[in-house]
Amino acid sequence: MEQKISIIKIGGNVIDNESALQSFLRDFASLPNPKILIHGGGKLASRLSEKLGIETKMIDGRRITDDQTIDIVTMVYAGLVNKRIVASLRALSCPALGLCGADANVVPSHLRPKEPIDFGWVGDISHEEINTDFIASLLQQGITPIFCAITCDEEGHLLNTNADSVATGVALACSKLGRTSLIFCMEKNGVLQDINDPESVIPHIDQDTFTNLLTRKLVHSGMIPKIENALKAIDGGVGEVIIKNADNLLTDLGTVIGR
Amino acid sequence: MEQKISIIKIGGNVIDNESALQSFLRDFASLPNPKILIHGGGKLASRLSEKLGIETKMIDGRRITDDQTIDIVTMVYAGLVNKRIVASLRALSCPALGLCGADANVVPSHLRPKEPIDFGWVGDISHEEINTDFIASLLQQGITPIFCAITCDEEGHLLNTNADSVATGVALACSKLGRTSLIFCMEKNGVLQDINDPESVIPHIDQDTFTNLLTRKLVHSGMIPKIENALKAIDGGVGEVIIKNADNLLTDLGTVIGR
Repeated sequence: MEQKISIIKIGGNVIDNESALQSFLRDFASLPNPKILIHGGGKLASRLSEKLGIETKMIDGRRITDDQTIDIVTMVYAGLVNKRIVASLRALSCPALGLCGADANVVPSHLRPKEPIDFGWVGDISHEEINTDFIASLLQQGITPIFCAITCDEEGHLLNTNADSVATGVALACSKLGRTSLIFCMEKNGVLQDINDPESVIPHIDQDTFTNLLTRKLVHSGMIPKIENALKAIDGGVGEVIIKNADNLLTDLGTVIGR
Repeated sequence: MEQKISIIKIGGNVIDNESALQSFLRDFASLPNPKILIHGGGKLASRLSEKLGIETKMIDGRRITDDQTIDIVTMVYAGLVNKRIVASLRALSCPALGLCGADANVVPSHLRPKEPIDFGWVGDISHEEINTDFIASLLQQGITPIFCAITCDEEGHLLNTNADSVATGVALACSKLGRTSLIFCMEKNGVLQDINDPESVIPHIDQDTFTNLLTRKLVHSGMIPKIENALKAIDGGVGEVIIKNADNLLTDLGTVIGR
């Protein structure tokens, strides 16, 4: 594939706000192909659980996906959120295809070991197992894949999966097809030099600048694992990783993490 | 496509019974490719509506799909039921892809006119608009499409659609690709000569035998529109329509409607 493949991940802040989502999708639809979207779930699943009187179980601040919860997240992520996005993109003349990992076995996963903590129906992926041929066939047909973060193991269990991991896995897999750009859309404008100044975006980070920022304690705790994972993705073959505000998709604003 | 394409529709009686569904899927997985599954929704959507305190509105015995109901059926049909089927087929080594009509614009539809009865978010399809190229590309890759009966109009509205109509539309569209066999799986063993004798299956019906059965009042009211639609599908190019029990998928038992 000669053109750059854009792999874009949006999180709950976009999903939960209908007008932000529609505005983002308009921008996304206008991006040149080939492109891929990965979405998280937002608060809809928690809200539905609450309405149904299903208790959200947490251990160490992390949600446990029990039998009822995997049904809820499958309904909300793979059903409502995913199909709404696909339908909205249809109206924007962007042919899209909604996918969970089980579809065409596109993102196989493995049930997370029950020790030391049993997270329930949670899956971990390995990017080498992603069905790149199927993704390539969609991109060649001009179809934009829309991934939710539900995957599936060999035994046919649907598994709740971290959306950032799915995005990174898909970007690593697609790097076999061509140059990739992995874009994490969030609320912030990028990695900030000063957490209190939204305009203080660091335009470019590589391993050296990251080490330097760490030494000078100029990067905040929440951002550290994100940058570490981005640098790992670059090492794995992803062309660039960009952290930016979902509002700025069509602009150059944001932090580019690369070589 | 040289091989016969099987288009199989299952209804609520199979969907609502987990062991019946798993048994059906084992049989389905063992059928030779190419094959396509269309599923209805069963009672799960009504049960979820009830739990959420959403009233089911009916006019003339038919459900109205209001704003809340289209969300529920999208969650249940396109999310839970569809992805569970795809995941189960993965465990049976049958690569499958779950689809609603919005995906790859595969089954476009039109909002049903609000007169004389406003059914809400309900769509009607026209088989000429079905994205046959996309279905062909899946079948050529050995991927089995699994359709739920949610479709999408040009404006990006998800629409509740009759599953029998989706099955017939897909079969008509696929008849451009090769010889098709459209199989409706239900609780009965086929069209019965004697409603009280489940073994009295009429093995073959064509236009002449149907006229004869009607004249002799040997066919029951519920079955008449099904046979009429089947005969129309045959006229439209479908190779054969079979009405059979979901338990008998791998057997020859059932009524074949053809020329």
